[in-house]
Amino acid sequence: MSVAHDSLLYARVEKVLAGEITDGELTIGNQLPTEDSLILRFGVSRITVRRAIQNLVSRGLVEIRRGKGTFVAAPRIMHDLKELSGFVEDMHALGHRPTARVLGKEIVTANATVARQLALTRGERVVRIRRVRLADGVPLSFDETYLPLEIGKKIITNNLKVEPIFSLLERKYNVPLIEAEYKLEAVAAASEVASALRVKPRSPIFRIERTSYSTGSRPVDYETLHYRGDLVQFVTRLVRKTSR
Amino acid sequence: MSVAHDSLLYARVEKVLAGEITDGELTIGNQLPTEDSLILRFGVSRITVRRAIQNLVSRGLVEIRRGKGTFVAAPRIMHDLKELSGFVEDMHALGHRPTARVLGKEIVTANATVARQLALTRGERVVRIRRVRLADGVPLSFDETYLPLEIGKKIITNNLKVEPIFSLLERKYNVPLIEAEYKLEAVAAASEVASALRVKPRSPIFRIERTSYSTGSRPVDYETLHYRGDLVQFVTRLVRKTSR
Repeated sequence: MSVAHDSLLYARVEKVLAGEITDGELTIGNQLPTEDSLILRFGVSRITVRRAIQNLVSRGLVEIRRGKGTFVAAPRIMHDLKELSGFVEDMHALGHRPTARVLGKEIVTANATVARQLALTRGERVVRIRRVRLADGVPLSFDETYLPLEIGKKIITNNLKVEPIFSLLERKYNVPLIEAEYKLEAVAAASEVASALRVKPRSPIFRIERTSYSTGSRPVDYETLHYRGDLVQFVTRLVRKTSR
Repeated sequence: MSVAHDSLLYARVEKVLAGEITDGELTIGNQLPTEDSLILRFGVSRITVRRAIQNLVSRGLVEIRRGKGTFVAAPRIMHDLKELSGFVEDMHALGHRPTARVLGKEIVTANATVARQLALTRGERVVRIRRVRLADGVPLSFDETYLPLEIGKKIITNNLKVEPIFSLLERKYNVPLIEAEYKLEAVAAASEVASALRVKPRSPIFRIERTSYSTGSRPVDYETLHYRGDLVQFVTRLVRKTSR
């Protein structure tokens, strides 16, 4: 067996297993099949299986627990709460691969909260986009985004599976983002959120409500981000006020 | 009945009901007894009962739901995540009355995390203080504080039921606080936390790990704060980095 051939073999094993993690066939905490069963299943050598698994470890998709086996790992995501940034930017900064599943994009009427956040009148039409955001194939956040009708109608003509809304606003539609207000809460996952994130109902969720403003303090994007509590941590550094 | 007499009566009714909320006999979401039953119970007029309840509403302890009755309210605590501040300072800024129950203060050996956060060696002795922090009598946060031995031994000679540790450090012991690192997470309440906060186990908790630094980047206070998720919200404002 040539080295070139063998490298194709481990890449195939790696790809298949990574795919099963991405698709949720293997979920966080699940044990990977044993080396022996992978050797049988793929018809490859032990060295090939080990190399494939080592690559999955390097990618943070699985972890080896000594004496116990290999398990699907939880990506440890530590977000800086220091500047306004979008999911794709955050993931790239952390070395994770961001992807998205679009659950829906439609025109709806603004409820009281959405209207207040976007400085509209209740009942006005807005665009709602619902996505699951994944890091290295693991569902990390369920996001609901509300945009004013005019810009929202343009945004939803794009492929939101790959195009980040922040990039579209800033680069394609020339709507600069200046700053955002954040509300942070710990809540129990409602059933819709739980099923989107593949966690048990009532699991802890780190919820962020974020309203982003463009020039002239114009609100252009109101989001509710539901992060899996077990997978994320937000960090910041605060200074003491001197005059006490 | 004189006005003076009546004012004492409503104050007594108010105090008794506030006490029952503080003691947890009446918990958040519980309906208050009806006006008629309070009139009977306290032997006072309807006007007196209404005045007592109105004062509880003003204090944020109860809320009137139209057509349904009067209920023990969740204090809505909205913390600014903009500067390093302590619980007592936060509560005063928000117009809430802060109190504390001290669950324990003792010398323990630092585990790996405590040692790392306080720049000590694992196994070194540190002071641990465990408190429940209340807002208007409602348990809001369960806090575990670790201090280096020398300063910690001084701190625990004080009445920590009323003296905030930040004030003691800064004013009494001349240890200025400069800044702090925060880690924010959503977790499910462990049973100890749940019982301290009088919530069901696995209720959502907004957990903050905070390490405060004095001059020369010297860590002087490592805390884990467990806030009731249903009662707090943290707000901040982040600016967009310009060069993208």
